[in-house]
Amino acid sequence: MKITVLGTGEVCRLLAPAFLSLGHEVVVGTRDPETTMARNHAYRVLATRHPQLRPASFPAAVDAAERSGLVVNALSGPACPDALAPLAEGLTGHVVMDVSSPYDWSRPDAVLDPVNTDSLGEAIQRALPGSYVVKTLNTLAAQVMPEPDAVGPDHTVFLSGDDETAKARVGDLLRALGWRDVLDLGGIGTARATEMMLRMWIDASRALGTHLFGFKIVR
Amino acid sequence: MKITVLGTGEVCRLLAPAFLSLGHEVVVGTRDPETTMARNHAYRVLATRHPQLRPASFPAAVDAAERSGLVVNALSGPACPDALAPLAEGLTGHVVMDVSSPYDWSRPDAVLDPVNTDSLGEAIQRALPGSYVVKTLNTLAAQVMPEPDAVGPDHTVFLSGDDETAKARVGDLLRALGWRDVLDLGGIGTARATEMMLRMWIDASRALGTHLFGFKIVR
Repeated sequence: MKITVLGTGEVCRLLAPAFLSLGHEVVVGTRDPETTMARNHAYRVLATRHPQLRPASFPAAVDAAERSGLVVNALSGPACPDALAPLAEGLTGHVVMDVSSPYDWSRPDAVLDPVNTDSLGEAIQRALPGSYVVKTLNTLAAQVMPEPDAVGPDHTVFLSGDDETAKARVGDLLRALGWRDVLDLGGIGTARATEMMLRMWIDASRALGTHLFGFKIVR
Repeated sequence: MKITVLGTGEVCRLLAPAFLSLGHEVVVGTRDPETTMARNHAYRVLATRHPQLRPASFPAAVDAAERSGLVVNALSGPACPDALAPLAEGLTGHVVMDVSSPYDWSRPDAVLDPVNTDSLGEAIQRALPGSYVVKTLNTLAAQVMPEPDAVGPDHTVFLSGDDETAKARVGDLLRALGWRDVLDLGGIGTARATEMMLRMWIDASRALGTHLFGFKIVR
């Protein structure tokens, strides 16, 4: 299928080649393609290795998206609902897989925002009222998202979303990436649960001295 | 050792007999011992089976506590720092194992309070400035706390606290209960991480249809 990835940060650089390896067509969108190629060294290396990943603008990437495919929100942090809102019309009818975290990584001891009474997943669903938002993969380091076996064979990835068909499509993609334990938590409101695990992810990373771990719901 | 359990709810009813089984001396404290025995049917059944668990008042239970032992906060919810504060002098120098959750269970869709910028663990440490507070077991159903194998052989219990000796004592007790993967997250500030996992605990409980599960940090 066609997968449109919005954002050219670490998450995109790890997910996009994994999608290519599975045989999907990938289109990457960025705010300003020329600036990305000029200043984002890591992305330029990736686009040199995979010329099909040369970035398009956000509107062009959304125009090229297909409703039978998937759009991935790989924009970072609390600002992404505002960044996505102008794309709402073009994203109507599309499945949007959101992997963002409510955390400003440039501020080391920042608190989560939104949290507890709201989540980025819900905020993105409100910003994109005609889209089918599915929150997933946000409990993991970017490196582990497309490669669960980097950690171990048995840990859990979560799904939150209001549309069952959309969750099934995302679940199929996750299983193709090697995920075995895909746990559907329920509606998009359950994104609060996975987003609030970020605090544990940060503290466990510090305690273990590695980002290479995952959460298993043992039952 | 001598273990003083404050509170006569479900957590106490499950932990106190487990401590007795390990050969510890257990003293239970409650706000009003006569009322507990008259109105808390489940507790009366327990105290009939184990006469040594007949409750004392909070001050009497704290008076009987030993610094070489452990005091367990098994009071429920957001109100427990205020309930513990009057006992601060008597608890000076004691290790206080806190298993509370920032959630009012009588309000089904209540939000977590405190959360994100504070935690019950930190609030209790502030209320008991002379005590050594260790947060643990709060990511689990009461039933699983003293019986990790009810879920499976390999899941994680967390420790948060500022005093290494206090965490070592609590860790030893957990291992005696059968816990194998005891992860020290760091200072009491890391209680935010485990307390915020409550949202996942609630949503995973609903999705799985059971409280019998645990979190494993797979690494």
